Amino acid sequence: MSQTQPEKTAINPTRDQDFPEWYQQVVRAADLAENSDVRGCMVIKPWGYGLWENIQRALDAMFKATGHKNAYFPLFIPLSYLEKEASHVEGFAKECAVVTHHRLEVGADGKMRPAPSSELTEPLVVRPTSETIIGASYAKWVQSYRDLPILINQWANVVRWEMRPRLFLRTAEFLWQEGHTAHENSQQALAETDLILGIYEKFAREWLALPVFTGEKSESERFPGAVKTLCIEAMVQDRKAIQAGTSHFLGQNFAHASGIKFQSREGKEEFAWTTSWGVSTRLIGTLIMAHSDDDGLVLPPRIAPAQIVIIPVTPKPETREAILAAVDQLATALRAQTAFGEKISVEVDQRDIGGGTKTWEWIKKGVPVRVEIGPRDLEKGCVAVARRDRGTKEKQFVPLAEFVESAGQILEEMQAGILAKATAYRDANTVEIDSKEQFYGFFTAKNPNKPEIHGGFALAHWNGSTAVENQIKTDLKVTIRCIPNHPQDEAGTCIFTGEPSRGRVVWAKSY
Amino acid sequence: MSQTQPEKTAINPTRDQDFPEWYQQVVRAADLAENSDVRGCMVIKPWGYGLWENIQRALDAMFKATGHKNAYFPLFIPLSYLEKEASHVEGFAKECAVVTHHRLEVGADGKMRPAPSSELTEPLVVRPTSETIIGASYAKWVQSYRDLPILINQWANVVRWEMRPRLFLRTAEFLWQEGHTAHENSQQALAETDLILGIYEKFAREWLALPVFTGEKSESERFPGAVKTLCIEAMVQDRKAIQAGTSHFLGQNFAHASGIKFQSREGKEEFAWTTSWGVSTRLIGTLIMAHSDDDGLVLPPRIAPAQIVIIPVTPKPETREAILAAVDQLATALRAQTAFGEKISVEVDQRDIGGGTKTWEWIKKGVPVRVEIGPRDLEKGCVAVARRDRGTKEKQFVPLAEFVESAGQILEEMQAGILAKATAYRDANTVEIDSKEQFYGFFTAKNPNKPEIHGGFALAHWNGSTAVENQIKTDLKVTIRCIPNHPQDEAGTCIFTGEPSRGRVVWAKSY
Repeated sequence: MSQTQPEKTAINPTRDQDFPEWYQQVVRAADLAENSDVRGCMVIKPWGYGLWENIQRALDAMFKATGHKNAYFPLFIPLSYLEKEASHVEGFAKECAVVTHHRLEVGADGKMRPAPSSELTEPLVVRPTSETIIGASYAKWVQSYRDLPILINQWANVVRWEMRPRLFLRTAEFLWQEGHTAHENSQQALAETDLILGIYEKFAREWLALPVFTGEKSESERFPGAVKTLCIEAMVQDRKAIQAGTSHFLGQNFAHASGIKFQSREGKEEFAWTTSWGVSTRLIGTLIMAHSDDDGLVLPPRIAPAQIVIIPVTPKPETREAILAAVDQLATALRAQTAFGEKISVEVDQRDIGGGTKTWEWIKKGVPVRVEIGPRDLEKGCVAVARRDRGTKEKQFVPLAEFVESAGQILEEMQAGILAKATAYRDANTVEIDSKEQFYGFFTAKNPNKPEIHGGFALAHWNGSTAVENQIKTDLKVTIRCIPNHPQDEAGTCIFTGEPSRGRVVWAKSY
Repeated sequence: MSQTQPEKTAINPTRDQDFPEWYQQVVRAADLAENSDVRGCMVIKPWGYGLWENIQRALDAMFKATGHKNAYFPLFIPLSYLEKEASHVEGFAKECAVVTHHRLEVGADGKMRPAPSSELTEPLVVRPTSETIIGASYAKWVQSYRDLPILINQWANVVRWEMRPRLFLRTAEFLWQEGHTAHENSQQALAETDLILGIYEKFAREWLALPVFTGEKSESERFPGAVKTLCIEAMVQDRKAIQAGTSHFLGQNFAHASGIKFQSREGKEEFAWTTSWGVSTRLIGTLIMAHSDDDGLVLPPRIAPAQIVIIPVTPKPETREAILAAVDQLATALRAQTAFGEKISVEVDQRDIGGGTKTWEWIKKGVPVRVEIGPRDLEKGCVAVARRDRGTKEKQFVPLAEFVESAGQILEEMQAGILAKATAYRDANTVEIDSKEQFYGFFTAKNPNKPEIHGGFALAHWNGSTAVENQIKTDLKVTIRCIPNHPQDEAGTCIFTGEPSRGRVVWAKSY
């Protein structure tokens, strides 16, 4: 973490001082989102939504390249649908938004109220996830093995009533994609679950610069109703884990619940095998916590809503016009360049406010490269280039043409640097642990005032028992984040029970 | 309308026989959408959602090119927000989904129910439109004239409880975009309202091949709370009008209601001037009703989810591999071609079902161009090309290279042809009417069994009175669709009252 003095940072408190509050301040300073007056619901502001648009664009292309199509299913789920899958309703019915009326009227007190005469026969739940409502459609669409596989994704909003909301990480309403597929047999459904996990891992690494652990959830962390939940888990800068995406093999559970049946190649009636998978606006929270510093947001260039901002410096009226023209030319030249195989995105900030304020706004917003052109730069044919991954005062004066030509390469280098830094941080805080004592020490805060400061991720052997998991959760608030796909020779001994273990699993505190 | 015999058409009934039922059958045959078990909510299937994705992509680019950014605001609106603007709550509170509880529990009868202990202090309305919830944010964001204009758009789902839903045209939940802008003065807000109307008109014409009338709504058809509502109105094949997009000048009404105040350039506290504007999945319904025929959907190529489908014809196993290879090559070659300045989108249909079934599926889905390659075509270096705007049996055998080269031009020609046809249809059914008698005759069905068959759009003089409008609505179910922006010299005499008229207005039956 940063060694700078508090008074010199743009974000206060710093990460070292108070990580949770630092996070809130980064979100605010970068103008990403804010809480609304509606409990637990956030307003995603343009700079934050720009991140989501880039996430959508990249993932959508990857889904489509693997044969998936988008569709849209109803926001409302009849209560009886949720009840069809026992563990599913148990997992999701608890905290949800329930629609009970379809009209408002003026009551006896002169105030608006839900009209009693408009009470719904069956309450509707605002979707917390769509397995049951989509399953009802698939049951109609599937008759024969020829109708399979169904490979559909939906971009949508979902609602899970949250008692302790936190911007992006946990909000009552959030945006996500949910894929729902149906297959002829378990092998194909399992292959789909793996395919999507691979897409999530690649997307996290190549776009978000997040090195993630992948693997399977233990039974107690599994999606309600799933047979198998795969996940990607990221480490952020307080060394906690964030579950950043999940891919579920649902077996035939939801097909039974929804009646998704088909005539097989052998002419028998069989239930389909289904999967579901999703990532959400939580990815934005993960991104912020993983890369940002005490001066604000740090964005991997590949996902930044704007990769380069150009700031004209116009102290004298007589050179203003020439500078603005040069800025326009530079923007056009840069937009013709590519980074990551796509056109570079450029913003020009001509607002009539102080240069210092402007520069700090862009630092806090995490724009990868800032370019200034002033009267003297114009004379010399230079630009002043500042990178978000260097010190805030550091500027390089570069001949204009040289900068334009190297812009794509700079952005790609920065992306690689951010990934390397995050990987080094994760590796430095991921430890193989071989005794229970060491394990408890690893997860116990050295300073009781900073409970968030602990070891990080522990790779430790475990006997597969839920009872052991529960004990650790009770003692340390530590859970198994995932069970990696082990080669056979990694068997060992459970550090809690001395019983045999099939391999090390990833333990961590988590969001 | 089509002169073919009923037994020869893919859609039954035909447009002539029963237009409303024909519409439902086209939607079903094209696999665009279906009703869900949730009253009034539709499932938008991949082919229908593909249309929406193309609509989104084109409009989003136009909004961004004119300085707008996307953001996202909460799904739920506190009841008290809706009440802030009197005519607004009157217009929208009547039929809406009301969330009253945030938890489910198992009741005494063993069944799930909303937990009484989770009743919300203030009910939440699922947004029917977002002026009030977005206004609450703008009130926080705006302090000075320097914070203006705010130019934001949101892609979202909205809910308006509908008693008589109809796929795409009127559903309880629908997808839309809603722009919300705030400005320093009325001129800027009015200019924004006009700018967006221009975008809608251009998009309807150039992408959807819909010639639309533009103009202002009369007072009785205005958006609840608006000072001025501009709209685009399309004619569909039963000669009725569909309001396909609206752009509202809200004056300071919503700024007063939400408290959007700022310090002006003169240092005074003033209320902002706001606008809102939207188009929805209703555009898809309009598109279907405007262009489709008795064989199913007809899609303007620029908006089609796939512009060309390639169907391999593989009767003999020994030539199968060569044909599939040729199909792949052709797909690659076509995807490198452009139409409308973008890469051509191509689908290859290798499904193992009969060729006739396959061909008819694509006709009904409205794909602009179908290309077949069979063993003999391969020998001759030809492809068989069929266009959706020609007879269903009509095929042209074209040398492969020639087809690839001309593909973009064919699609552009088809687009122009569909627009020309729709324009000719609209013009043929838009009549200047100069007497009340003629007006009543124009809108009275000749055949009482087919109330939908009437004259079309009437351009007639009107004195500006709401009472006259109401009388016509009662008598004929005809309303003023829009008041075009008249040049001064079009003044005349109201055909209903003999009073002066400032110009002809557009009268029609409407959806």
